[in-house]
Amino acid sequence: MSKPLSVGIAGLGTVGAGVAKLLRDNAGIIAARAGRPIVVTAVSSRDRAKDRGLAMAALRWHEDAVARAPDAAVDVVVEAIGGSEGPARSLVEATLAAGKPVVTANKALLALHGRALAALAEQHGVALGFEAAVAGGIPAIKALREGLAANQIRRVAGILNGTCNYILTEMRVRGLPFAEVLHQAQALGYAEADPSFDIDGVDAAHKLAILAALAFNRPVDFSELHVEGIRDISAVDIAMAEALGYRIKLLGIAERTDAGVSARVHPCMVPVDAPIARVDGVFNAVVAEGDAVGRVMLEGRGAGAGPTASAVVADLIDIARGRFSPVWGADTAALNAAVALPMHQHRGAYYLRLMVLDRPGVIADVTAVLRDAAISLESMLQRGRAPAGAVPVVLTTHECGEAAMQAALARLAALDSVLEKPALIRIETL
Amino acid sequence: MSKPLSVGIAGLGTVGAGVAKLLRDNAGIIAARAGRPIVVTAVSSRDRAKDRGLAMAALRWHEDAVARAPDAAVDVVVEAIGGSEGPARSLVEATLAAGKPVVTANKALLALHGRALAALAEQHGVALGFEAAVAGGIPAIKALREGLAANQIRRVAGILNGTCNYILTEMRVRGLPFAEVLHQAQALGYAEADPSFDIDGVDAAHKLAILAALAFNRPVDFSELHVEGIRDISAVDIAMAEALGYRIKLLGIAERTDAGVSARVHPCMVPVDAPIARVDGVFNAVVAEGDAVGRVMLEGRGAGAGPTASAVVADLIDIARGRFSPVWGADTAALNAAVALPMHQHRGAYYLRLMVLDRPGVIADVTAVLRDAAISLESMLQRGRAPAGAVPVVLTTHECGEAAMQAALARLAALDSVLEKPALIRIETL
Repeated sequence: MSKPLSVGIAGLGTVGAGVAKLLRDNAGIIAARAGRPIVVTAVSSRDRAKDRGLAMAALRWHEDAVARAPDAAVDVVVEAIGGSEGPARSLVEATLAAGKPVVTANKALLALHGRALAALAEQHGVALGFEAAVAGGIPAIKALREGLAANQIRRVAGILNGTCNYILTEMRVRGLPFAEVLHQAQALGYAEADPSFDIDGVDAAHKLAILAALAFNRPVDFSELHVEGIRDISAVDIAMAEALGYRIKLLGIAERTDAGVSARVHPCMVPVDAPIARVDGVFNAVVAEGDAVGRVMLEGRGAGAGPTASAVVADLIDIARGRFSPVWGADTAALNAAVALPMHQHRGAYYLRLMVLDRPGVIADVTAVLRDAAISLESMLQRGRAPAGAVPVVLTTHECGEAAMQAALARLAALDSVLEKPALIRIETL
Repeated sequence: MSKPLSVGIAGLGTVGAGVAKLLRDNAGIIAARAGRPIVVTAVSSRDRAKDRGLAMAALRWHEDAVARAPDAAVDVVVEAIGGSEGPARSLVEATLAAGKPVVTANKALLALHGRALAALAEQHGVALGFEAAVAGGIPAIKALREGLAANQIRRVAGILNGTCNYILTEMRVRGLPFAEVLHQAQALGYAEADPSFDIDGVDAAHKLAILAALAFNRPVDFSELHVEGIRDISAVDIAMAEALGYRIKLLGIAERTDAGVSARVHPCMVPVDAPIARVDGVFNAVVAEGDAVGRVMLEGRGAGAGPTASAVVADLIDIARGRFSPVWGADTAALNAAVALPMHQHRGAYYLRLMVLDRPGVIADVTAVLRDAAISLESMLQRGRAPAGAVPVVLTTHECGEAAMQAALARLAALDSVLEKPALIRIETL
C-alpha cells in the first residue's frame, strides 16, 4: 500500500471534529477504498483544551491556520473554519497557491468566490473538493459533475435547507403557525438563535449557486440569484395548498434555456404527487433533469456531523486515489458564458392569497386587476364568511410573466378592500 | 485541449447506437467535461446495412468484435453485445488483457464473472466501467464506490427492475390481475416476449449482486443469492397490502452484519410512507444506509437508450479524465471475505395469505401451527364470507426466523382446510 495521505484540519467544530472521528472510526475501509491510509497529522483550533473525544495530543497544533498552509508535511488541508471571508478564505487561497489540494464544506465561500477559487486551483493544478457544501452526505456534487456529465442539464432543483423543510413540514403536519414551529426548532437545535441565514433563503441560495455552476459549467454571480425565504408563509397558505393538491416547499431552482440561465430560491407550491413533495423534515433532495437521463432525484440528510464528514472524507478519498475534476466541471477556458436571466423575465403559474373585506364586489375588483394585466385565472377559492371582516381569497393563475404579476400585485395591494400585503407563492411542476 | 479519446463500440443495438448518438449530440459539453473530445472511431455489428440514424460510413467496421480488441487505434472499448458468455465475455477479457479499458452495461457478465474480471483489470492496470449495468442513468455505482466511500454500508436495497415495478404499479392503480398487466406491458414494449428474466427476479438479482459487491467490497457468488420473482403476486395481495398500510415492491436487498453478508431478491411489503414505496412505474431506486451518512436514496429511469447511454458516456468521461476506481471499490488484496448468510438464516416479519374453507375452527388450526413454530402473530384479517367456499385469511407476524416460517408454511399447506399454496411476502422497513 502506498504512502499515507497526510491531512491537516483547520477548525475543530462540528465539521472538523466529525471528519477526524470518521477518519479514525472507519480507518480500515477508508484505506482500502483510498488505496492508502488517510491520517490526520495536524490540526488548528482556537481552543486546544476542549474535549472532543479525540486523541489529538500527538498531532501538530497550530494557532494560526493560515500560517500553516505551506506546511510541507501536510498533503491536503480540510478547511472547517467557516465563513466566506477572513481566515477561511485566506487559508483556502494560501493552500491552493502553495499547490496543495483543499477540501471544504464552506458553501458561502464557494458561492461568493467560486469563480476566482476555481481559477486559482486550475493555475496550480490542484483539487478543490466541496461535496459537503451542498446537501450534506448526498453525493450531489459528484452526481452532477461526473455521474450525469454526458447530459445537457436543463434544470437542477432542490430542497437545500433542512431547517426550512423541517419548519414547513411541522406547520403542515401539526397545523402550527410559523413562529411557534421556529421557536420549537430552535429549542431542538434544528434552527440557529439567529435563524435568518436559513429562513430567509440565503443558505439555500449559496447551495443553489453551486449546483447551477456545476449543472451549466458556468459560475454564478451570487447577486444574480433571486432569493426569498419562508417567513411570510402562513398556516392559511399551508392549508390552502393541501386543499388545492399542493405542498409548500422552499426550493432552489436553476434553469437553462436558449435565452440564458436563471437561478432562484423561493417558496413553491409543488403537486402533492411529485417525488420532491414527499421529502419531509430535515431531509434534503436534489433533482436534476438531463436530456439523456431524464429526471434523477437524490435524497438524504442535508446536515449534521456524520453526513458532512461522509462527504468531506469522500473528497479526501478522491484525492488519495488521484481522481480529479475541475471545480465547475470543465476547465476555465471551456466554461460557459450564458447570460443571466433576471427574475422579472420569469414565467410561471402563481398562487395568490388576499385578505379581503367580506362584501359584494370585491372579487370583481380583484379579477378586473388580473384581467387588465392579461393574467389568466385557473381557480378561485373563497372559504368561510366574515361579514364586514377579513376573509382569505385564494387565486391560482395559468402561466404568465413575473413582471405582469408583480405589477398586478402592487395594484391589488392598493385596493381599499385588500386588508393585508397579498401572499404570492409560485407554482412549480418538478 | 488534449488528444481525443478514441472509442470502439462493439454491438449497435439499443445501447451501442444510443452511446454513439449521445457522443455525437452532446459532443461539445462532453469534450468540455472530459477535457478532450471523445470520438467513435470503430464499430462492430452483425448488420452493417441497418439504418441507425448515424453517419458511420467513415468508421472502421469489424465483423468480429473479439478479433478487434488489440486494435491500436482504439483507446477504449464499449461492449454492447450483451450476454454473460460468448463474444461479450471474450471481448471484455481480450480487451482488458491487451491493457485497454472497457465500458459495459452488461449486468449478467459482471454478476457472474465480476471477481475474475476485476482481477484481470487490476493485473493490467486498466478500468472496467459498468455504471450502466445497474439502475440505468442513476449514478448508483459511482455513489456507492466513491460518493459514500467513507461509510460502512449496512444495507443497500433497491427497485432494480422497471418491468416488475411497472407491473406491480399497474396492478395496484388499475386493480388488474398479473397476467393481464404483463400482457399489456408486452404490448407496450415494457416487457419481453419471454419475460422470465425480468419477472422471475433474475435481472434484479444480477444488479443486486453488483451493488452488494460494491457496498461491502466483496464480490458475490451469484449462487449465494436468494431469488424470487413476482409471478405469484395476486390482486388479493395487492389489495390486502393497501388495507394493511403497505405497498408490494420487488426489492433487491443486501445486508452486512457481524455474522456475514446476505443478498436476496423477492417481493416485499414496504410501509406506504417509506420513500421507496412511492417509486412507481418504470422508475428504479437505490437506497444505501451508511454509518456516517444515514439513508441516501437515488431515483430515476432504470432503462432505455438515453439513461443507459448517459451512464456509459459518464464512464468514458471518467476514463478520458484519468479518474480511476478499482472494480469493487478496493484493490483485490483489500477485498473483504465475509461469509455469505444463507436464506434460511434470515429473520424478519412476514405476510401470509391462505385460501381456506369458510368453516368454524380453521383459524384455530392455522394459529396452532404458528404457535407450535414459536411464530408470534401481529395481525389477522379475514374479510368476506363464502360459507363452504374459499376465503382469504391474511396473517402478519412479528420478527421470526425464515427456517421456522418455511417449516410452518409446509404444515399449513398440508392442512385439509387450506385450499391453495399459501402466499408468503416478507415485510421490510427501509
